[in-house]
Amino acid sequence: MNIPQQKVPRVVIVGCGFGGLQLAKSLKNAPVQVVLIDKNNYHTFQPLLYQVATAGLEADSIAYPIRKIFKGQTNFHFRWGEVQQIVADKNLLRTTVGDLPYDYLIIATGTTTNYFGNTAIEQHAMPMKSVTEALNLRSMILQNFEQALLSDNIKEQEALMTFAVVGGGPTGVELAGALCELKKHVLPNDYPELDFRKMRVLLIESGPEVLQAMSAPNQQKARTYLEELGCEVWLNTKVAGYDGSIVNFQDGKSLHTKNLLWAAGIKGVTIPGLNADALNNRGRYVIDEYCRVKRYENIYALGDVAAMSSEKFPNGHPQVAPVAIQMAELVARNIQKLLKQQTPDKFEYFDKGAMATVGRNRAVVEAFNIRFGGFAGWFVWMALHLMLLVGFRNKIVVFINWLWNYINYDRNIRLIIRPYQKA
Amino acid sequence: MNIPQQKVPRVVIVGCGFGGLQLAKSLKNAPVQVVLIDKNNYHTFQPLLYQVATAGLEADSIAYPIRKIFKGQTNFHFRWGEVQQIVADKNLLRTTVGDLPYDYLIIATGTTTNYFGNTAIEQHAMPMKSVTEALNLRSMILQNFEQALLSDNIKEQEALMTFAVVGGGPTGVELAGALCELKKHVLPNDYPELDFRKMRVLLIESGPEVLQAMSAPNQQKARTYLEELGCEVWLNTKVAGYDGSIVNFQDGKSLHTKNLLWAAGIKGVTIPGLNADALNNRGRYVIDEYCRVKRYENIYALGDVAAMSSEKFPNGHPQVAPVAIQMAELVARNIQKLLKQQTPDKFEYFDKGAMATVGRNRAVVEAFNIRFGGFAGWFVWMALHLMLLVGFRNKIVVFINWLWNYINYDRNIRLIIRPYQKA
Repeated sequence: MNIPQQKVPRVVIVGCGFGGLQLAKSLKNAPVQVVLIDKNNYHTFQPLLYQVATAGLEADSIAYPIRKIFKGQTNFHFRWGEVQQIVADKNLLRTTVGDLPYDYLIIATGTTTNYFGNTAIEQHAMPMKSVTEALNLRSMILQNFEQALLSDNIKEQEALMTFAVVGGGPTGVELAGALCELKKHVLPNDYPELDFRKMRVLLIESGPEVLQAMSAPNQQKARTYLEELGCEVWLNTKVAGYDGSIVNFQDGKSLHTKNLLWAAGIKGVTIPGLNADALNNRGRYVIDEYCRVKRYENIYALGDVAAMSSEKFPNGHPQVAPVAIQMAELVARNIQKLLKQQTPDKFEYFDKGAMATVGRNRAVVEAFNIRFGGFAGWFVWMALHLMLLVGFRNKIVVFINWLWNYINYDRNIRLIIRPYQKA
Repeated sequence: MNIPQQKVPRVVIVGCGFGGLQLAKSLKNAPVQVVLIDKNNYHTFQPLLYQVATAGLEADSIAYPIRKIFKGQTNFHFRWGEVQQIVADKNLLRTTVGDLPYDYLIIATGTTTNYFGNTAIEQHAMPMKSVTEALNLRSMILQNFEQALLSDNIKEQEALMTFAVVGGGPTGVELAGALCELKKHVLPNDYPELDFRKMRVLLIESGPEVLQAMSAPNQQKARTYLEELGCEVWLNTKVAGYDGSIVNFQDGKSLHTKNLLWAAGIKGVTIPGLNADALNNRGRYVIDEYCRVKRYENIYALGDVAAMSSEKFPNGHPQVAPVAIQMAELVARNIQKLLKQQTPDKFEYFDKGAMATVGRNRAVVEAFNIRFGGFAGWFVWMALHLMLLVGFRNKIVVFINWLWNYINYDRNIRLIIRPYQKA
């Protein structure tokens, strides 16, 4: 790969999610060369993907060009490509855009959708882990309403207008809430010819309650919010199969729907080449308290793709942005310490709490033993997400869209720019 | 097709460009049923496509959902589909979403890119007539810079960084100007490793001057603006062929480029089924002064796809939005007159002038025998385009983007969301 050779050590970062981005930034003044490689040329603000999928936001306002983020950082180099293999004994990364030798390698590849080996579900359900997938989902939702309009078969119409979201984590809850708001405020204006009593939004959760990472009162509050918005919440319900038209559940029930939105699981995006025991049984890199991958000196992993066992989190920390960001800060600091022959620091997680929004004036927040919801929760959720969005222009554009949507009970981006056809 | 049968006459409009949109709106209070069919579920504000292609605007801010435009217009029905054939003796339109009987049919299908039969150019050049094509062009421009970075072959690098825009009409001029601004202000920050003296922007025009529809002083002014921005303007130069790497010109010259942007011609989008003499030799429907297609009583055509011969415009009016809008207003009025057995009006074109922008503070405007340019022209161009954009939210978002780009010399949307691979 055509990258200038320098006398300083080269730090290669794979992935520009919250972790990779923070790490590259934190190394700005370090005496290293930073090479970041990502399969996209932009950073994705994943927490708002569901709003892209439900026509509330432009894709472009939650994606930010990587080169622009690092404008002026002279030790930074970006390459747009995919990694193929780590050749650890040669300190070499093989990629679609050439071989890349490294002194330090940091794997910050995040996660992808996990179908738990069910290929039928993988084939027919819609995931929502990337901008492209969110856009496909947006197209599909709208296409199915257009299709419903053409049909005079009531069963088919109902299947086209039924949305089953699988997975009661924050993504599933937020997506189901947004679909309910589309049903309540937006789509009936677009399709006056359709009977919207036929539109159903279901949230399917295999466990006993939604938002399992939260406290019981907030779990119940979130479920109540969903039900107030008209969402049917099916708890303790496991999906067994899906053929594109009928979902079968493990308890023998079934549901006729053309829209199975899969937010039920994630798995690490791993790179071939490391020892088998570098990965745990959930597909996450086993890292020590310095974020080093097991049995490697100069290969690190951080964020969602990594699992550091600790007293509080024996199977690894929660797969959320703050963990990735804090790990990235640690790794940046430690690389600089190692270069100065100093003792590196161990990771300590500072838990900033958790939140999820269900809809207009409805969110649940918990942080530092405080717990709240309703309008206050929703307001805090919005303010925090605006703060965390990369780029001032994006903050303004998202803010205007939110203000607009709030005042007008609207979602403007109901565009089918590239019609979606499931393969 | 599943559209309610009503006792009032049915007006079927094909295409929701400026003409179709205006016609459906103008029929709001008419005693007719309006059915609009379009292959997209949104109206495209074509004059700003070049800004989507050059990373200045989101696709979503120049596209507007058709159903939202007509919210509350009770005599309006939209169907998302493509038309296949007109069966005139049965008053029937065949479409991909079913058959549609009509009382009045209005063809407002606009134009598409014309390669004048040169399939090699069609295969390798990039058009820019739709949102999807503009997004593809944006991806390709950015992909080629990423590619240039990987190459250590200087000839290949130069070909990747050379942009040849063919066609000196407003689209070509605006696109070339925007590319020059990317070269001047934006891309060098993104690619500090590349030598931007290698980046070339060329505007290739077969005639003796750019903007042939304008007055000579404005033509020269526009060309001067382009040259000030660093664009090489090649006049009297005809493209003979292109194989994806080398453009051959009719005078024997050639140019090594991976980017041939084709804005050199348009042709009408016609529907099979009418008499051969309904079309002229430029692929436009021959219409009388009432916009009726030759030899048909109840089939109309308007806008870019139609050609009304008049003293001033023997081959049809200019293919610009004001003509389409004015024709649409006439047809809406005349349909209502005909229903009341009144005499329909003849078309009279009110020429509002023409304008084109080259870049920051540089535009040419002429209207009502006034002619100006520079900052004033550019300001008027912006104000008018903002006014004409559909939707208040879109106006705000575009305004903020323009303000941002103006202050920061920036183009924010440099995202490769769907990488483009020419087939």
